[in-house]
Amino acid sequence: MVKIAVLGYGTVGSGVVEVIEKNADMVNKKSGEELEIKYILDLRDFPGDPYEDKVVHDFGVILADDEIRIICETMGGVGAAYEFTKKALMAGKSVCTSNKELVAAHGPELLALAKQNCCNYLFEASVGGGIPIIRPLNYSLTAERIEAVTGILNGTTNYILSKMEYEGADYADVLKEAQEKGYAERNPEADVEGYDACRKIAILSSLMTGKNVDYRKIYTEGITGVEARDFEYAKRLGMSIKLLAIGREEGDKTLAMVSPFLIPGGHPLHMVNGVFNAVFVRGNMLGDSMYYGRGAGKLPTASAVVSDVIDCARHLGKVIMCFWDAEEAKLMSIDQVKRRFFFRVKDQGLDLAKELFSNQLEEVTLADGAGERGLITPVLSEADFAGRYEKLGDAKAGRRLRIEE
Amino acid sequence: MVKIAVLGYGTVGSGVVEVIEKNADMVNKKSGEELEIKYILDLRDFPGDPYEDKVVHDFGVILADDEIRIICETMGGVGAAYEFTKKALMAGKSVCTSNKELVAAHGPELLALAKQNCCNYLFEASVGGGIPIIRPLNYSLTAERIEAVTGILNGTTNYILSKMEYEGADYADVLKEAQEKGYAERNPEADVEGYDACRKIAILSSLMTGKNVDYRKIYTEGITGVEARDFEYAKRLGMSIKLLAIGREEGDKTLAMVSPFLIPGGHPLHMVNGVFNAVFVRGNMLGDSMYYGRGAGKLPTASAVVSDVIDCARHLGKVIMCFWDAEEAKLMSIDQVKRRFFFRVKDQGLDLAKELFSNQLEEVTLADGAGERGLITPVLSEADFAGRYEKLGDAKAGRRLRIEE
Repeated sequence: MVKIAVLGYGTVGSGVVEVIEKNADMVNKKSGEELEIKYILDLRDFPGDPYEDKVVHDFGVILADDEIRIICETMGGVGAAYEFTKKALMAGKSVCTSNKELVAAHGPELLALAKQNCCNYLFEASVGGGIPIIRPLNYSLTAERIEAVTGILNGTTNYILSKMEYEGADYADVLKEAQEKGYAERNPEADVEGYDACRKIAILSSLMTGKNVDYRKIYTEGITGVEARDFEYAKRLGMSIKLLAIGREEGDKTLAMVSPFLIPGGHPLHMVNGVFNAVFVRGNMLGDSMYYGRGAGKLPTASAVVSDVIDCARHLGKVIMCFWDAEEAKLMSIDQVKRRFFFRVKDQGLDLAKELFSNQLEEVTLADGAGERGLITPVLSEADFAGRYEKLGDAKAGRRLRIEE
Repeated sequence: MVKIAVLGYGTVGSGVVEVIEKNADMVNKKSGEELEIKYILDLRDFPGDPYEDKVVHDFGVILADDEIRIICETMGGVGAAYEFTKKALMAGKSVCTSNKELVAAHGPELLALAKQNCCNYLFEASVGGGIPIIRPLNYSLTAERIEAVTGILNGTTNYILSKMEYEGADYADVLKEAQEKGYAERNPEADVEGYDACRKIAILSSLMTGKNVDYRKIYTEGITGVEARDFEYAKRLGMSIKLLAIGREEGDKTLAMVSPFLIPGGHPLHMVNGVFNAVFVRGNMLGDSMYYGRGAGKLPTASAVVSDVIDCARHLGKVIMCFWDAEEAKLMSIDQVKRRFFFRVKDQGLDLAKELFSNQLEEVTLADGAGERGLITPVLSEADFAGRYEKLGDAKAGRRLRIEE
């Protein structure tokens, strides 16, 4: 019998309880021992809940109980969650979390703490919800030098972009609908500005490099400003627009960035629609592989937390391999990254655009014209493109988009 | 230092040596110890090869050497490979293999033998080459009740079908080209008749159920008889034709089958083209997830073998969890499985077809007509469909295809 505690009885926390209850036979078999939820920490009471009598309000009770070997941290945030996690690990209790903010902010410290105390800090649920991606990176692709990780890592923005693509709808309308349906928060900034994807790619890039990729240093651009008209051009080009989070080894440096991209029809990420997410991984031996599934949601995320609990239960007193050092990864500036760009100009700016880009632009026109053109540059560095593009001044229409080949 | 032996210096075996050499720093770091290839078993000599002096011809040398803790079995077949694997495991040496025939034929026995001798029998490379799928099933989806596994598991047939789809080419021509390019064997039976996919789905279904799914009892149909014209209909329907291998829990029984299927455009397996393979998994908590990558090839397959070697190196003397009992899984007959079917009739058979299927057929016509029609049935059991279809006699055109929704 292994006794566990759940911190935070919200969406994911109650999902953890549900998964352990509903799949008890499977979970116990895979754990090699019976799991029992002994405490649920929450500020609230839950009268009438079948787990009512497990609810405690004081983390001290859990910390002091030697029977508790594994803790699920499903509170979120970097305040109390950080404090509780540190205390738990120092007491030799393993912690399994869905808290991407905390993992991105303090991953190496918490991993080191776990190691010192012969327990584990696992975070499969922190990236990609129901997509097993942390464990494949840590345990499956072990013979690989991972060269790049490219992900659609945020369900809300992917839902919005898919809706815009299939319904020709405007960003503001789709966002409003997503908020009404509960797919987007009332304050959608963390999702639509790319901050959520930024933390997730910080975690994945750190695991890729084995060093710490500081999420605060990742170039991050959100999906605001993407217009229905951009999707019309994308369609003409046989492309889609996705918010991509990229981590890539470039010599001895690491490129990490989040931005909306045009991606071509043949790319496996092209078909990742709605609330689904996916992570595309390039290794030096196995080439391309991809991991696809639900990026969020109560039960998928909870299932990932419970898979970590099972891993902890099977490794009580042993440290599970994870390479993520505190040493900072050298991030490269995006200025020198080369790619093609798409942008739009008003008809009267076409000649200026041609001149600025030395007559090397590919033109895309929509059926209705709409007084503007779409243009695709040859491969240019970010800095080179930006310098030329800026000079277009008022002739610009809409926002420019990067193209991921 | 962990010393290993490689059995068979062919494509995969030499790939294993290459991966361990090229990614030595990564492989040693992840193993926690340095790996050294001490022996390579092959009947041939390899004069001039950098590993020439490691080559031995007698398995007894490897078996008798107590320094050898891990063996890579990349010989294939169920003769010598079976004998050597048993002897190695009985001597407490872990075995990592890419040999799907042996795993499908003797998996539970070899796993039990490994357990008895405190070592491991790992086979990540036996299914899906470079796609991590065995380890995700065994270690990641542990909190799930897996309900279904649907895979495109054979690179040769997927290459042939993709070529037919994109080039409108005939089966015989594409097969010939694939043979010339080395993508298909001179005797292509194992691939095109579905025998290879059958062994792979036997392995995946066994891991899904935890019991033994006997590959000899799996309903298996290959891609011969699929015609260029079938792809014309598929295109009209917005569908693709793929050789699917399916394992599915149906009450207390398991459905396992291999067959070409029409699959709709929105299905994630729809975009899996060429030599790529993918496995689609449905769990009761996380819903759908998919694992995509190169299904075969020297380095992807070798990378999977080496990931197993690393796992063994980290677990010397310990047994890694794998639930695959010798107890036979109860397989259901496909007769009662219900789905829609597509078939073609000559124009003169249309009225008979309508009558046989109670006027419930959906009609699909090609631009050139070609003296035939495509017809789609409502949802029917296999037995019900077959009974009616058989009565069409000479009015049938081409072969019928199942539809996977």
